[in-house]
Amino acid sequence: MRGLMMDRPLLISTILDHAASVFHDREIVTRTVEGPIHRETYAGVANRSKQLANALTDLGIGQGDRVATIAWNTNRHVELYYGVSGMGAVIHTINPRLHPAQMAFVINHAEARILCVDLTFAPLVAKLIDQLPKVERVIYLTDRANMPADALDNGLCYEDLLAAQSTDYRWPEFDENTASALCYTSGTTGDPKGVLYSHRATVLHAFGFSLPSAVPMAESDAMLPVVPQFHVLAWGIPYAAAMNGTKLVMPGPGLDGASLTQLMRDEEVTITAGVPTIWHGLLAHWRQTGETVPSLKRVIIGGSAAPRSMIEAFQDEFGITVLHAWGMTEMSPLGTVSLLKAGMESADADKRFGKLAKQGRPVYGVEMKIVDEHDRPLPHDGTAFGALKVRGPWIASGYYRLDHSDNHDTDGWFDTGDVATMDDDAYMQITDRKKDLIKSGGEWISSIDLENAAMGHPAIAQAAVIGIPDEKWDERPLLAVVKTADATVDADAVRTYLSEKVAKWWLPEQIVFVEALPIGATGKVLKTKLRAAYADGSLSGEGGA
Amino acid sequence: MRGLMMDRPLLISTILDHAASVFHDREIVTRTVEGPIHRETYAGVANRSKQLANALTDLGIGQGDRVATIAWNTNRHVELYYGVSGMGAVIHTINPRLHPAQMAFVINHAEARILCVDLTFAPLVAKLIDQLPKVERVIYLTDRANMPADALDNGLCYEDLLAAQSTDYRWPEFDENTASALCYTSGTTGDPKGVLYSHRATVLHAFGFSLPSAVPMAESDAMLPVVPQFHVLAWGIPYAAAMNGTKLVMPGPGLDGASLTQLMRDEEVTITAGVPTIWHGLLAHWRQTGETVPSLKRVIIGGSAAPRSMIEAFQDEFGITVLHAWGMTEMSPLGTVSLLKAGMESADADKRFGKLAKQGRPVYGVEMKIVDEHDRPLPHDGTAFGALKVRGPWIASGYYRLDHSDNHDTDGWFDTGDVATMDDDAYMQITDRKKDLIKSGGEWISSIDLENAAMGHPAIAQAAVIGIPDEKWDERPLLAVVKTADATVDADAVRTYLSEKVAKWWLPEQIVFVEALPIGATGKVLKTKLRAAYADGSLSGEGGA
Repeated sequence: MRGLMMDRPLLISTILDHAASVFHDREIVTRTVEGPIHRETYAGVANRSKQLANALTDLGIGQGDRVATIAWNTNRHVELYYGVSGMGAVIHTINPRLHPAQMAFVINHAEARILCVDLTFAPLVAKLIDQLPKVERVIYLTDRANMPADALDNGLCYEDLLAAQSTDYRWPEFDENTASALCYTSGTTGDPKGVLYSHRATVLHAFGFSLPSAVPMAESDAMLPVVPQFHVLAWGIPYAAAMNGTKLVMPGPGLDGASLTQLMRDEEVTITAGVPTIWHGLLAHWRQTGETVPSLKRVIIGGSAAPRSMIEAFQDEFGITVLHAWGMTEMSPLGTVSLLKAGMESADADKRFGKLAKQGRPVYGVEMKIVDEHDRPLPHDGTAFGALKVRGPWIASGYYRLDHSDNHDTDGWFDTGDVATMDDDAYMQITDRKKDLIKSGGEWISSIDLENAAMGHPAIAQAAVIGIPDEKWDERPLLAVVKTADATVDADAVRTYLSEKVAKWWLPEQIVFVEALPIGATGKVLKTKLRAAYADGSLSGEGGA
Repeated sequence: MRGLMMDRPLLISTILDHAASVFHDREIVTRTVEGPIHRETYAGVANRSKQLANALTDLGIGQGDRVATIAWNTNRHVELYYGVSGMGAVIHTINPRLHPAQMAFVINHAEARILCVDLTFAPLVAKLIDQLPKVERVIYLTDRANMPADALDNGLCYEDLLAAQSTDYRWPEFDENTASALCYTSGTTGDPKGVLYSHRATVLHAFGFSLPSAVPMAESDAMLPVVPQFHVLAWGIPYAAAMNGTKLVMPGPGLDGASLTQLMRDEEVTITAGVPTIWHGLLAHWRQTGETVPSLKRVIIGGSAAPRSMIEAFQDEFGITVLHAWGMTEMSPLGTVSLLKAGMESADADKRFGKLAKQGRPVYGVEMKIVDEHDRPLPHDGTAFGALKVRGPWIASGYYRLDHSDNHDTDGWFDTGDVATMDDDAYMQITDRKKDLIKSGGEWISSIDLENAAMGHPAIAQAAVIGIPDEKWDERPLLAVVKTADATVDADAVRTYLSEKVAKWWLPEQIVFVEALPIGATGKVLKTKLRAAYADGSLSGEGGA
């Protein structure tokens, strides 16, 4: 028997309609690519998104067509999110840090008909355009006065396009399972794979994101997403913020400590979100200058594991609560958030930070299990670790234009590729990527745990651990380290420090000091490159055992 | 083009599964009908719901079958919510305050096969059972020791049923549009009409309820729903609480000020919800005894309009924030919540309470419009009023076993039967029920506004306004008033007081002091009875004009 409830589809356009009606004068403030600060309201963004939809319709874009973007976090990029998805087309966000060959691959694989680019990337597009046979038009995200000198002959000016259009547009209604957005994961091996989001998944994800046990943002909050809009839809923040009337503060290309601090102070930002690398820079800037952001209450850290020392620093030095979160492109991305369980507020610091440094508990909507090599569930004892699998309405069921996915079980679970533990309070902790675990003498060493321990050392800015072949133990860990500016520390001192944090047999014989670590397009260390460097002899230990 | 996201249904059982896994030791505390306090955890309730599903399966209950309840707010009633809906059957909650003939009507109309009753209602059921040919078994919600003397011969004991069953049960998966629950609206005219909720609607409503702009409940909160589980699923609180790990405190039949205060104090309740009548009683108790509930931070007031004086009393006398909310059985029920718009925190008290006394702004998921008699949209200027219509995924599309609904437009909107204004901040205010508006000399008088103004008088406990025929003006208002205990006030004093609050031509010529107002099953004043009393001469004015 069916219930007798209205059959209303969960569409992304309903989020913007709600914001424009209920939170019409809340702002989206942008540090533009051109330089100045630009202020827009949700009502303004809604009108401009409708003008955009009219303009794209005139350009022949219809339901299901892909419109690609290479762009920073700005109100225009938010308008593209809503305008393109709202009209039933698919927004395809591209990471500008991809290798140009990969970038051409994803644009061609997606068969994007229109490419929208910030001024920063105009030169890149000029070079790339000959390899993009399917791209019909390039739209430069700027006004007439700032159109780049190297604009393509048939290139279009975003503000001109909008100015020519009416705000009179009615968002179409269609099946909520319709595709809305496309993001490619940049795997370390093989071609990038496309995750094709749906309206339903994105609306449900915005609900899940907004739950008190996840990342609730109030109307009175001001959110600055440092996480880029070209990376997993900025973790879904542009949707959750509009759903809740939260002010959005968009940093454009200004992601250094000084620019972020200035913008946060000016706009009284209360919550921000990004990867650990960004926060290393921001904390360093604050310590160096003595500047802080008094309005800032919460920092969401995701993308890779937040070292406990970073969580403690935000809390103890600056009184800012860290929400340690975990997810994946295939998960829209939110999977877990590490909030203190009710009643733990009064636990001692060690217990509290021990929990907060884990990846956290599943958000409602995400089912999660850890299993052994025979797919049998493992105990939730905080010790047993196994393959982490997830299931839920905002998790990918496959990849765009791929018939087969190795990561999807026949019974509907997605294998994250992570190895994890779960404890009896349902806190999940990533032990390692499956492929990064080190097997030494028949026992596992977690590269992540070893990296996090090393990063607690004040002289260490970044750390990465890889397994290297060893005759006696099969594999042994190698620790590559970037020192903080002006710090002096040697391998023995690091080993002595680590010996108090990890088991003796985990201590790396080889500790290598490097100028920088190889970083991929999403800000993560490329361990494949480290392994290759070790293999060809260009990475070798300063301190032997 | 469809997105490539997992096709996972939104089922009520997933909420309980989540609570049992992530918030397993959070509690549901009940003041039982038998007397003692009973403590259960979400893990316990989940296990017991599974035992119940096994027991109902053994009794032959299958998908779509109706299982009726006449019961207070208790953990057992929560188990019925989850167990019955979780297995794919339909829980049909019945208001015990219905007239017995109406009660028989709804049970027979629903064709409920099983009836679950609290001990309080055993005598009622004994009297009624002969009129319920479809009811196969009655389950008494108690243990063996407390089975009532007048239990039916084939009556069953709830705790015995559960004890005989394993907790091993796997919630079935089915279409999310499957019916989950059935509540009848007790209209003042005609037969009650059944609203048939679906799993999808209930899960989405729990999401909407939990938004920061609605009624966010954290894991650390303790919620005492005074609103009964037999009334619109206790406003959906049992679902939203489990979704967020919020502790539930269930008052059973103890709804007087002293009992509520004691339970709130013992269980450190932080948030509660109910109709104005309850809060009149509670505020009176607090003022009389000097007792308060220090942990209590928020009170949700719905069901009928909260007088501004009540909102001010909670805030100014007790430091408790009122969330004034509005909804309907047909709306699951949440439609609007009156939270202060961002930036209004520093407005003067008059402005703030002026906004808070309105019914509030639509929750994301609910679309709302006010229209004139030709269905043309009216301006949102806070003055123009018209028929209030709503649309959304948790709003009824019709009524159970009725082919036609007068309240549903052909274009999918539901006519609430309310007349309302909307202002430029999207705050909706109910002017009146369409049928209660008074037309005097061609102009409208809002009975609700007049009642709220009267209730601001310290000597007035309750007030109701009806239109009475008038030769000159067509209709004039009559104000019926219940005095507070020991208060002395006369009609002239009330009129003088009102003359500072409303337009002169609104002042009622007839003000009648009564012992009590006729109250319907959902706690609302029955204006039909007042009108009838006026017509037969039993209600007449103490003070003429």
